Amino acid sequence: MRGAVLYAPGEIRVEDRPDPVIAEPTDAIIRLSATCVCGSDLWPYRGVEKVDGPAPMGHEYVGVVEEIGDRVTTVRPGQFVVGSFFASDNTCEICRAGYQSSCVRREPMGAIGTQAQLARVPLADGTLVATPEPPPADLVPSLLAASDVLATGWFGAVAAEAGPGKTVAVVGDGAVGLLAVLAAGQLGAERIIAMSRHAPRQELARHFGATDIVTERGEEGVAQVKDMTGGLGAHSVIEAVGTQESMMQAIRSTRPGGHVGYVGVAHGVELPGQELFFSHVHLHGGPAPVRRFLPELIGLICDRVIDPGRVFDLTLPLERAAEGYEAMDERRAVKVLLRP
Amino acid sequence: MRGAVLYAPGEIRVEDRPDPVIAEPTDAIIRLSATCVCGSDLWPYRGVEKVDGPAPMGHEYVGVVEEIGDRVTTVRPGQFVVGSFFASDNTCEICRAGYQSSCVRREPMGAIGTQAQLARVPLADGTLVATPEPPPADLVPSLLAASDVLATGWFGAVAAEAGPGKTVAVVGDGAVGLLAVLAAGQLGAERIIAMSRHAPRQELARHFGATDIVTERGEEGVAQVKDMTGGLGAHSVIEAVGTQESMMQAIRSTRPGGHVGYVGVAHGVELPGQELFFSHVHLHGGPAPVRRFLPELIGLICDRVIDPGRVFDLTLPLERAAEGYEAMDERRAVKVLLRP
Repeated sequence: MRGAVLYAPGEIRVEDRPDPVIAEPTDAIIRLSATCVCGSDLWPYRGVEKVDGPAPMGHEYVGVVEEIGDRVTTVRPGQFVVGSFFASDNTCEICRAGYQSSCVRREPMGAIGTQAQLARVPLADGTLVATPEPPPADLVPSLLAASDVLATGWFGAVAAEAGPGKTVAVVGDGAVGLLAVLAAGQLGAERIIAMSRHAPRQELARHFGATDIVTERGEEGVAQVKDMTGGLGAHSVIEAVGTQESMMQAIRSTRPGGHVGYVGVAHGVELPGQELFFSHVHLHGGPAPVRRFLPELIGLICDRVIDPGRVFDLTLPLERAAEGYEAMDERRAVKVLLRP
Repeated sequence: MRGAVLYAPGEIRVEDRPDPVIAEPTDAIIRLSATCVCGSDLWPYRGVEKVDGPAPMGHEYVGVVEEIGDRVTTVRPGQFVVGSFFASDNTCEICRAGYQSSCVRREPMGAIGTQAQLARVPLADGTLVATPEPPPADLVPSLLAASDVLATGWFGAVAAEAGPGKTVAVVGDGAVGLLAVLAAGQLGAERIIAMSRHAPRQELARHFGATDIVTERGEEGVAQVKDMTGGLGAHSVIEAVGTQESMMQAIRSTRPGGHVGYVGVAHGVELPGQELFFSHVHLHGGPAPVRRFLPELIGLICDRVIDPGRVFDLTLPLERAAEGYEAMDERRAVKVLLRP
């Protein structure tokens, strides 16, 4: 099969890789219908995260089950499935509490690499969710979004306790931030402030339900959110970047007693304990437990209530994955879909 | 009147200070029945927190109302009252959400200094809660504890979501940590692990409801808590110290999806963003909104359901405040009550 491999910062090659085989009786092999490039793929691509040797890339995926191990019972060959970026058993105490991305048996799909034609999915019963029927082609991008960026934005909104009567601010206008706007809307937020300086992203944010746009960043962005909330700050702030500046912007934009949901993978972040202490905010986040939300999200997509696939503004064949990375790195594309 | 003043690190003097007067129509003047030395008073006492010039000390207090301003309506002269370390209006949006210690009009009682015979309490209606009747003398220490250490431990337990079915660990065996044990028990926690190396404090922890004692600290303490919880960590961990080590011990002792309630005033703490991200914990804390809990706590004390006053293991006349600071600084006393 063909698959994308990162050789060095900035160097993505699509090359022949061995076809995956069932290694454990709980595995499934899927043929990918679509995959994509994640904002978090840019960390190693940019050399911020160190990579040892050639690394298969990708952890977002939808596809059709080709083969299952002997102990797989909930999905069968021919079904269209959506998975998550951590395989999970969905039965351990941590999974049952809704934190499948910290499953005691979790396996990172990023190490397997789903920017490929085929992928082995460990713990298939606990990881994959089948759609009620094979989806029409136009729903595939939205279902692909559910495997990471939508579920991540959704988790951010849930962690920030977005809901009725709440003013929600979103720091970050990448795919996750934009879909956090969508999630906040679905969760019933009264007012949704998208923080973005880019017209096309602002437009998408409005499409997804943003009621206000703030173009300022950092302390000016904080001041703007406070001005809009009687000096108090937002009830809920979703952080979808992962830098020191964005985390502090999120914390400082939140009122005392409010909630910060942070889902941008933290890089180089050090939170000042004393400021956090006196901020009185709730802080929760981390890698989204995609599996928790998949059944609900698949339902909303199949019923055409939400259209998160709108975040894909560039579609390329898998063979041209390198161009996709470039476009995202240069922020020419919000999110790149790859057709294997 | 007489009052305690910090002149320099380690130098507490009890001296004549001007009697307080009603400055605002929302003020009350109270005659203190009891006051005490707080763990947080030790930060400036030890020179860790810088103090400019002589500073009146103390922010915990119970007493009898002597005089009220024209606009005070909920307390009247002669009533026995319990206050909190931040005066609050208890009417602003932040107070109504339960975060009175971040009230938009808050005033720190520490700047007024309650280690004294009399004190002016700003925003008396929003700050003071009267007992149903003047309490018998033996309840005064417990009511005094409610004005800070009990309410702080309680907030830690609430922030950590201690409750039925939960295993709760408490980092710190000072008065706040010990009373967090009591709070976790009252909130219905199934198992309460007190982390303490000191026999008398262990004993008090058991009296307050600890089911287990862990004597190890740092990484060894974390390993011990994990061993006791099937390798997962506690559901709820209360941090009641405020150092880097104790914060990391608390975060690392908590299972993914669990809750850290941190109430030790953070000093020199920097939280590593990436570790926090992947820890999947909820983090909440800060200065306890004492006022939120006072009515309930006063009820429990007056009904003799709880006896938080047990944390006071040294009682001195106010004139000997300096000895009280020494005893707490040297950890010879858990908590020192001062009689004005």
